[in-house]
Amino acid sequence: MALTTAETTPALVRDLDFGPAVALSCRECGARYDLGPSFACTECFGPLEIAYEFPKVTREQIAAGPANIWRYRSLLPVPADVTDKPNMAPGWTKLVKADNLARELGLRSLHVKDDSGNPTHSFKDRVVAIAVEAARNFGFHTLSCSSTGNLAGAVTAAAARAGLDACVFIPADLEQAKIVMASVYGGRLVGIDGTYDDVNRFCSELIGDELGDKWGFVNVNLRPYYAEGSKTLAYEIAEQLGWRLPDQIVIPVASGSQLTKIDKGFKELIALGLVEEKPYKIFAAQAEGCSPVSSAYKAGHDVIRPVKPDTIAKSLAIGNPADGPYVLDIARRTGGAVEDVTDAEIVEAIRLLARTEGVFAETAGGVTVGVLRKLAAEGRIDPDAETVVLNTGDGLKTLDAVADQARPAAVIRPSLDAFRTAFA
Amino acid sequence: MALTTAETTPALVRDLDFGPAVALSCRECGARYDLGPSFACTECFGPLEIAYEFPKVTREQIAAGPANIWRYRSLLPVPADVTDKPNMAPGWTKLVKADNLARELGLRSLHVKDDSGNPTHSFKDRVVAIAVEAARNFGFHTLSCSSTGNLAGAVTAAAARAGLDACVFIPADLEQAKIVMASVYGGRLVGIDGTYDDVNRFCSELIGDELGDKWGFVNVNLRPYYAEGSKTLAYEIAEQLGWRLPDQIVIPVASGSQLTKIDKGFKELIALGLVEEKPYKIFAAQAEGCSPVSSAYKAGHDVIRPVKPDTIAKSLAIGNPADGPYVLDIARRTGGAVEDVTDAEIVEAIRLLARTEGVFAETAGGVTVGVLRKLAAEGRIDPDAETVVLNTGDGLKTLDAVADQARPAAVIRPSLDAFRTAFA
Repeated sequence: MALTTAETTPALVRDLDFGPAVALSCRECGARYDLGPSFACTECFGPLEIAYEFPKVTREQIAAGPANIWRYRSLLPVPADVTDKPNMAPGWTKLVKADNLARELGLRSLHVKDDSGNPTHSFKDRVVAIAVEAARNFGFHTLSCSSTGNLAGAVTAAAARAGLDACVFIPADLEQAKIVMASVYGGRLVGIDGTYDDVNRFCSELIGDELGDKWGFVNVNLRPYYAEGSKTLAYEIAEQLGWRLPDQIVIPVASGSQLTKIDKGFKELIALGLVEEKPYKIFAAQAEGCSPVSSAYKAGHDVIRPVKPDTIAKSLAIGNPADGPYVLDIARRTGGAVEDVTDAEIVEAIRLLARTEGVFAETAGGVTVGVLRKLAAEGRIDPDAETVVLNTGDGLKTLDAVADQARPAAVIRPSLDAFRTAFA
Repeated sequence: MALTTAETTPALVRDLDFGPAVALSCRECGARYDLGPSFACTECFGPLEIAYEFPKVTREQIAAGPANIWRYRSLLPVPADVTDKPNMAPGWTKLVKADNLARELGLRSLHVKDDSGNPTHSFKDRVVAIAVEAARNFGFHTLSCSSTGNLAGAVTAAAARAGLDACVFIPADLEQAKIVMASVYGGRLVGIDGTYDDVNRFCSELIGDELGDKWGFVNVNLRPYYAEGSKTLAYEIAEQLGWRLPDQIVIPVASGSQLTKIDKGFKELIALGLVEEKPYKIFAAQAEGCSPVSSAYKAGHDVIRPVKPDTIAKSLAIGNPADGPYVLDIARRTGGAVEDVTDAEIVEAIRLLARTEGVFAETAGGVTVGVLRKLAAEGRIDPDAETVVLNTGDGLKTLDAVADQARPAAVIRPSLDAFRTAFA
């Protein structure tokens, strides 16, 4: 294997502290590189990911840690003193025991991993927190990203706390809540006339330009670090289940990165002896209006054909998902599936989750719960197996999805007679 | 002292389990009553509150509890097995070390207690969780409330999870996010043509009518139980500071209940030997457009003159605050103060907190941070003392307050030239 030096300078390398991370490694050809702000293999153009030498770690050590993702810091590419630095300290969100929803779907044991409890109310706080440490390590002064909305808010908030500049890029037609959230923390919010894929391409250009010098694009040149943040979802689910893997899990797919990292996290827990080895099935969920991975799965293809998104699930509206092929692999290998639901089914699922469990999900949560419901109705998941479904965002950011249906039953004068008349 | 029986039936009394709570006690005359769905003293019309016989409890026992308010269940009017019941399990929100904001305000040590991390993103989840247990104890089938918005969402969500019906009442002119959130969880949302005080009066009528039979109005007939939930803010702040009381704390005032209960919580911790006794100053914060308590404080009065609210801080817009006189007492007794800020100062403070700490507060958080800023600028708080400021809600619910100012810096085509032109 090649051990080539990335674009990091010797001065930078000297001060790097990524904890247990020891190298970047190509997911395709296995080539290894020094830790640096690189994301693609120079030999085969495959994606780079973090290679570790993990210390011995026990359940007790983890449980004694803080109530956030840093309880797993010895399994993440961050320095041991990350807890002392100003960051958003995301994670350790609730694993909600969803007995009411389980009953409606005919399942025996169901939990909702509710990441709306994160500081900016989406799972993106997890990945950004790792990217911030990478940006500090590499001496970057500006944090940036292409975003479908949630990420932009997570980046600008984290940059504010960390004392970094921020410049973030979104499609100009996003929900108002996401636009406000992406700009209220300061930094520079730039709307792009185009889709998320246009925004993404633009950021790739910017990174090669002097305009983007010393910028950490969390989901481009910091992507190998950033993506590891999603492993913490796997760690938390297992720990919150009592150090046990679920039998079945339903995960949303935008780029597909989160799903691959949850699978990686489960495998690490087994390898480290923190949970017992057992089979688990991973189900991937997309919106019909942006379902390139689901389409490939159903057609039996290995290659993803890009689509132009048209769905209310904007946080999943990535028409050309980078990790799509890996999602197909994992769904097939674990005995899961990839499925999609319509916008109407998404809205129904949001309301179902809200009225059964008091969890108000973003459209992405409507996608996972909708797919779970579909799989259960069609007998494609085991009703007796321990099941987890992810809600990765917050209904307050996608109000329009339900605003037509979520209204007062009546507006009345403040009198008993008026109440009687309205509801008699 | 009178020990009279409230309207509870013997059958109800037999099955009641309120943990360490032993009676209701009049705050004014000290008359004691059996635990029941009562809220006013029949002797003097004073408000009733919970009287306890606390068990011996240690820091270690509490720390071994769950990461939510039930870690303090032995200090709350709930059964010991409350953790096994379906509820929202709120609390244990972040105490954010706010070094950036402290620097801007010239303070040495500042923390933000950020209750936007609760399940429905406001502190109301705390109080409602206690009310749900009271409703279960009393055999009520419907959970209800008058609300300025946050409470309605907290009640309908909690009712959904607990399997209770819900019927909640709000002023019809609330923010869209709060209306959606109050109806998405199911139950019945009723808009009232009028102010919060009109809604409140209507609920008091309803409770005396057969229409409201077997209804638990969390902030009326369940108020003594409900209000105790705010004590958990005091417990958490002290525990998160390392079992130490802060020197100074800034708390928002709507009805004033939360402030009085935080003071009660601090005093209980001292009495139980869980923290060292020391003086602390409580500062109360209102919006200028609804500042009856601040006005009375400044005028040196003991009586609150009701006002008609006119402020963007709708969650604090209670013109006739029931616990206003107690707030005056506490601010004066502890050496604190009551202060108010304009709507413009509220917006500025929301943006200040967001850009320094990555915390996006509701207008109520703008009120507390704005008042803190004013007190600091005027030299009325000790810049070297340990200070805590509360954010009780979420900026996503009051987007309009900042929407004009939180916008993209530019909207451009996805090209480097366009970026250069926009930001050259």
